[in-house]
Amino acid sequence: MLVQTLTIVGVGLIGGSVGLAAKSRGLVRRVIGFGRDPANLAKARALGAIDEGVLTLADAVRDADLTIFCTPVDRIAEQVLAASAFCKVGAILTDAGSTKQVIVRDIETRLRADVHFVGGHPLAGSEKKGAEHAQKDLFVNRVTVLTRTAATADAALDTVAAFWRALGSRVEILSPERHDAALALTSHLPHVVASALAGLLPAEWRDFTATGFRDTTRIAGGDAEVWTPILQHNRPALLTALAQLDDRLTAFRQAIAKGDSVQIDQLLTQGKKVRDALGS
Amino acid sequence: MLVQTLTIVGVGLIGGSVGLAAKSRGLVRRVIGFGRDPANLAKARALGAIDEGVLTLADAVRDADLTIFCTPVDRIAEQVLAASAFCKVGAILTDAGSTKQVIVRDIETRLRADVHFVGGHPLAGSEKKGAEHAQKDLFVNRVTVLTRTAATADAALDTVAAFWRALGSRVEILSPERHDAALALTSHLPHVVASALAGLLPAEWRDFTATGFRDTTRIAGGDAEVWTPILQHNRPALLTALAQLDDRLTAFRQAIAKGDSVQIDQLLTQGKKVRDALGS
Repeated sequence: MLVQTLTIVGVGLIGGSVGLAAKSRGLVRRVIGFGRDPANLAKARALGAIDEGVLTLADAVRDADLTIFCTPVDRIAEQVLAASAFCKVGAILTDAGSTKQVIVRDIETRLRADVHFVGGHPLAGSEKKGAEHAQKDLFVNRVTVLTRTAATADAALDTVAAFWRALGSRVEILSPERHDAALALTSHLPHVVASALAGLLPAEWRDFTATGFRDTTRIAGGDAEVWTPILQHNRPALLTALAQLDDRLTAFRQAIAKGDSVQIDQLLTQGKKVRDALGS
Repeated sequence: MLVQTLTIVGVGLIGGSVGLAAKSRGLVRRVIGFGRDPANLAKARALGAIDEGVLTLADAVRDADLTIFCTPVDRIAEQVLAASAFCKVGAILTDAGSTKQVIVRDIETRLRADVHFVGGHPLAGSEKKGAEHAQKDLFVNRVTVLTRTAATADAALDTVAAFWRALGSRVEILSPERHDAALALTSHLPHVVASALAGLLPAEWRDFTATGFRDTTRIAGGDAEVWTPILQHNRPALLTALAQLDDRLTAFRQAIAKGDSVQIDQLLTQGKKVRDALGS
């Protein structure tokens, strides 16, 4: 038993999967779910993702040893700070947000000194939403990034790392800045690109899409409510990534306009080499 | 029995799948495979994709009622014209190339009048290559585009359409120009984008990719030898599509730079709406 009382703030796909994963592995004595929608909490309880649903943040975190915030990135810092007022001394708070610099900075400059925050981001998910898509093995063989800053307590970082490892995840520790630079390229830029591609398709040509278009645009099905704040949070790194993509698309455009098959082949071969290295 | 003798020129993923699909459905009396690599032809025969492998184009097409060319787009026109010299009067030739204007124009201006060519493109495939990945149901519930021009013989078009329908495909008839404009957006642009995204990823950040990056870049694993001539053939439509994408990425970039969450949300919501309409 790693954690006596685990509280999950936001019991959707990620939060629900954390609950299912922790309970199915016997890592927790009790899982409390906090949310604003009683029906969703009842559903999460029926699915076995939480033991108890609570509608008041103070009640949800009062006994928690570990609280994990699985809400949209623009709500995490305020929720962590609000919840921290009701936490036990020594309680650990962490999150599953897709951006880290803004969240970690906003929390660390204002958090009381006798509770601990560790930034986190499990690189798992889906364009689907809701506890009904939660999976107990969602984090198995996935990477979870945890952040370390000058303010990070080593013991709290160790506990959160042990928790994610126990869910089957590989843990990588980065600064918030490195996390955001990496994820700008590996997640946020692909989201923008998938959305832009999907948005270009006229209805009359839907029948002429095959698996290539579907794969390339799949993540565009993600919720704008979740993704708008992610793109907002990671503005500088994302703008850099967009500029890099623009350079590369310009190289393609010029090679295609000139009919330069050697250059087109080189660009495609570079992309294939990277993609092949990732495996299926 | 729809076709007495079917010849497949280029027995890879698509050609092999045509053979398997036709044989397993009892549509053909005999399938001849033409290729330059005896080992590949032997493999295709062992897999049941062809009945006989032939290394000489003249011998491969002499008895064919229907010949389908499944080779890279920059080789199809020359192979069709070369093969046509040896075909029976009334023979039908078709192809599975991903571009249509250049191929159809090059063939129609030079083909002898007593054989028939119908441009074709099954919207099915994979980033994989080779007869070993052939599937007998690859075309089931997929769209196959056939082209109609002033030079198209209706009876030949009907035969080729009946053939693809018998393989489980839905047939759509378009002009070569409409095909290429649609596929520029639904296939060729996504390929360029997937390749550009993959090519940006530094090796140190490979561990920080999740399913989103993998889905979005999957088709970048396609063969440069296949894709370079496709991008070359469809130059004007692809440059138009690249310019449209650039406009949309610029809109994203400006909204992100300004922190305009309403505009970001609108762009994401437009993309999601289109993607949701496509289904999984």
